[in-house]
Amino acid sequence: MDTDICGPSMPRVMGCATEQIHSSNMGWSPVYVADNLAVMSIGFLLPNVDDAVIWRGPKKNGLIKQFLKDVDWGELDYLLVDTPPGTSDEHLSVAQFLKESLIDGAVVITTPQEVALLDVRKEIDFCQKAGIKVLGLVENMSGFVCPSCHGESVIFVATTGGGIGLAKEMKVPFLGAVPLDPRIGKSCDYGTCFLDEYPESPASKAIMQIVERIIPAVSFS
Amino acid sequence: MDTDICGPSMPRVMGCATEQIHSSNMGWSPVYVADNLAVMSIGFLLPNVDDAVIWRGPKKNGLIKQFLKDVDWGELDYLLVDTPPGTSDEHLSVAQFLKESLIDGAVVITTPQEVALLDVRKEIDFCQKAGIKVLGLVENMSGFVCPSCHGESVIFVATTGGGIGLAKEMKVPFLGAVPLDPRIGKSCDYGTCFLDEYPESPASKAIMQIVERIIPAVSFS
Repeated sequence: MDTDICGPSMPRVMGCATEQIHSSNMGWSPVYVADNLAVMSIGFLLPNVDDAVIWRGPKKNGLIKQFLKDVDWGELDYLLVDTPPGTSDEHLSVAQFLKESLIDGAVVITTPQEVALLDVRKEIDFCQKAGIKVLGLVENMSGFVCPSCHGESVIFVATTGGGIGLAKEMKVPFLGAVPLDPRIGKSCDYGTCFLDEYPESPASKAIMQIVERIIPAVSFS
Repeated sequence: MDTDICGPSMPRVMGCATEQIHSSNMGWSPVYVADNLAVMSIGFLLPNVDDAVIWRGPKKNGLIKQFLKDVDWGELDYLLVDTPPGTSDEHLSVAQFLKESLIDGAVVITTPQEVALLDVRKEIDFCQKAGIKVLGLVENMSGFVCPSCHGESVIFVATTGGGIGLAKEMKVPFLGAVPLDPRIGKSCDYGTCFLDEYPESPASKAIMQIVERIIPAVSFS
């Protein structure tokens, strides 16, 4: 469920940008990108993909409510909610509307610079105030291996300790660091699955390790 | 004027994160980082820098109004407004509140990937619908020169033409491309001025060229 109403990128990233939403008496059907993976995003509802969604908070909240109430999700093992940056309407709505169904927790993503950590500290504070458990912190774009000389460069410098330092400081688990691989961005642009295409890459291995750390924290008890 | 209410990074980037706002009978005084440069941000008003600002749209709009009405800006040559991503409350408020004082235009920043361009197309559509002239598009993080082998790598791949392609497609001026230099992030983290520190770097030269292209478009007529 893509709650980035003004900048929906999930349809493109998941390779289903040209799909449309069908509705039946069961409600809206989400778009299935695999037998076991369905996506819902405002991106499917726009007449033109380039149109701005010029909506203030209440209208955005209304659509998020509809995504939860009027979409025929069927039986779900997991509902993953992708949010825009910030701690405002979208985040509050998700926290409020899902309060009774209990939220397993939040995975918070950062890049290594202090300017990014600044915002992420606020996201973690939001989760704590909203009673959402922080499953852990992921550091994205952690280093770059030059394809010519194989030397490693730090592109986004961790001047204040990066993700691992922040996790320690805020007492949340550190789930792992994903190196910057230009092919990830390319896979997102083409809507293909990076993990399937490059399973042996250091980035894929890091992502799979992170997944394995998250699963026990959200398993059915 | 930093309108990113939930993620204010201007105080850190401008090197004045520890400053506080003083108020007099003239209103709030902005923080002066140089004789000719004043900053206003919610970052100066938070009791604790890590606290989340858990505000829905109307409250954010109220603060932006206060920034425009209650801040003793003095005589300004330029008012630069930094916005968060999106096309929602903050953007609508700035457009509405400044309508009568006339907005010279918007400088839109993107990175080269299609997933970023997707959002930027919406920002440009927003500007056009709100009657704000698009002064031009800047491409940030355009390529990376390996410090070991000096080979150039493309970190964020322009699968669909990047900034220059988008500018052509949307018929807005292309202002320039700023290469990815890890020292820019570092300067932001330390609150120092990258242009003063590394005036000879390709990134500084690109930024200065962009500035020279913007000035004639916003000069006093």
